[in-house]
Amino acid sequence: MPDAFSVLPEIEKALRSYVQGLQAGTNLREAISYSLLSGGKRLRPVLAWHACVAAGGDPDNVLPVCVALELVHCFSLVHDDLPAMDDDDLRRGIPTLHKHAGEAMAILAGDAMMTLAFEPLTGPAFRGHADLSVRLVRELVLATTGMIDGQVYDTIPNTVPGATPIERVKTIHTHKTGALIRAACVMGGLSAEISRGGPLAPDEVNSLGNYGSAIGLMFQIVDDLIDVEQPAALAGKRTGKDAQAGKLTYPVAYGSADRCREEVAGLLSQATASVSRFGASGTALRELASFLATRVR
Amino acid sequence: MPDAFSVLPEIEKALRSYVQGLQAGTNLREAISYSLLSGGKRLRPVLAWHACVAAGGDPDNVLPVCVALELVHCFSLVHDDLPAMDDDDLRRGIPTLHKHAGEAMAILAGDAMMTLAFEPLTGPAFRGHADLSVRLVRELVLATTGMIDGQVYDTIPNTVPGATPIERVKTIHTHKTGALIRAACVMGGLSAEISRGGPLAPDEVNSLGNYGSAIGLMFQIVDDLIDVEQPAALAGKRTGKDAQAGKLTYPVAYGSADRCREEVAGLLSQATASVSRFGASGTALRELASFLATRVR
Repeated sequence: MPDAFSVLPEIEKALRSYVQGLQAGTNLREAISYSLLSGGKRLRPVLAWHACVAAGGDPDNVLPVCVALELVHCFSLVHDDLPAMDDDDLRRGIPTLHKHAGEAMAILAGDAMMTLAFEPLTGPAFRGHADLSVRLVRELVLATTGMIDGQVYDTIPNTVPGATPIERVKTIHTHKTGALIRAACVMGGLSAEISRGGPLAPDEVNSLGNYGSAIGLMFQIVDDLIDVEQPAALAGKRTGKDAQAGKLTYPVAYGSADRCREEVAGLLSQATASVSRFGASGTALRELASFLATRVR
Repeated sequence: MPDAFSVLPEIEKALRSYVQGLQAGTNLREAISYSLLSGGKRLRPVLAWHACVAAGGDPDNVLPVCVALELVHCFSLVHDDLPAMDDDDLRRGIPTLHKHAGEAMAILAGDAMMTLAFEPLTGPAFRGHADLSVRLVRELVLATTGMIDGQVYDTIPNTVPGATPIERVKTIHTHKTGALIRAACVMGGLSAEISRGGPLAPDEVNSLGNYGSAIGLMFQIVDDLIDVEQPAALAGKRTGKDAQAGKLTYPVAYGSADRCREEVAGLLSQATASVSRFGASGTALRELASFLATRVR
């Protein structure tokens, strides 16, 4: 793991503290806690943190964004795992929420995490920065809607008609995983405004967005490669499942794993170039891109 | 129907125009349109409209709030109707969304409507009023979380332990239906800020909130009475179902329909008194309360 992940304890602390302060019924809180505090890479919060640093921000100001991103990510995992969707029993090495707490609770806890994500973005941390709150809320709506669109394309037949396999798989994943990863980078960067005392220049935001789009696509290609190549015990979830379900994956669309690796190399270059403007402050983002290109799970 | 509903064409127009401008995949848009444009009383938007008027606002400024409220309401109906929840086949006289478009699409369209609700609240209509946007987002998060909590209490056994039947049924419904109805009144009132040129006084907001809480509870008691007393054809949905499902309703908790009607009369007085301060501007809100106390469906 690269140094960029040394911020994980801070992020875990923010998530735990969020769950402790959560105003909700006991059962709902337990279900949210089960999903939100069961580990995971925390990739989106880590990206937001380092995008904030790249843009010259104080990472204390990005923590509400980190919590919001992980709430939305966990909501999407819980709903995607449901029997009517991907029907998964195992997630991060433990039973999925609907296996643990029942299907009704999994639907409701997912719903709750999604709506709750908008709370930290409009909370006391942004007092005096209402314009920034509004911008963050809008970025999160856009990303979440894109993510849901991607799940529609992925789950429901014939929702990307007339596309080639490569176009189809890219359409699915620029939405399904790409939108929130891109938003993590943009929202992280935007939160630098608080310590900088003024908003980012539009081309700074674009650079972070382009970086996010490139690594988002790369992330999913690598994920598909892991699904083909890794045993379940190492990946922490059921693997080989995409092929069994007849799902279109990058190795299938590109025809070979080698062709996927070439695509990954190209996206890594794009990502690295996008954040070169940030110089030394962008080091962690560049490290993260390299890590994501070569990760084994 | 009281005069207060004469604003329905304006609200329907805002909802149709919202769906037309929606940036989402075709299938997702169709599912959202099916749910959002299939009629219904539009009670929450109508309440928000008249709360805005009561607070001296221009109702043009409340339309984004109306759209947001109806998106959240429709999301809750779609998810509550799912097989894992209330398992309903009929809604507003037509098949429920999961019967029409499948369970996966119903889950996803509900998710999308919920996140999309935060878009109109932070859109161009609130340019220059970012503090108001933030306040509206926070009210909607609180109401939606409360609503989900209510559905947990209602759907999942033993989530209100140790309470008497009346306490239990009130806990369920002050959350499940009450929270969003209260939010409709508060958010409608808050949006008067735009034409008034400054925020409402806290006790104006409280008056609207108290009115909303009283009619929210009243609404659910009347709904339970309809479920006991009306045939399905008139109610536009399956009735007599609460008893079949062994659900705790107000007639059961209070022991008689007459006792429920007394409770309704008390809540009507509370609601009317709460908005007396608004004088003639509050006429529609008082009419609405009377209507809700005596409606047959």
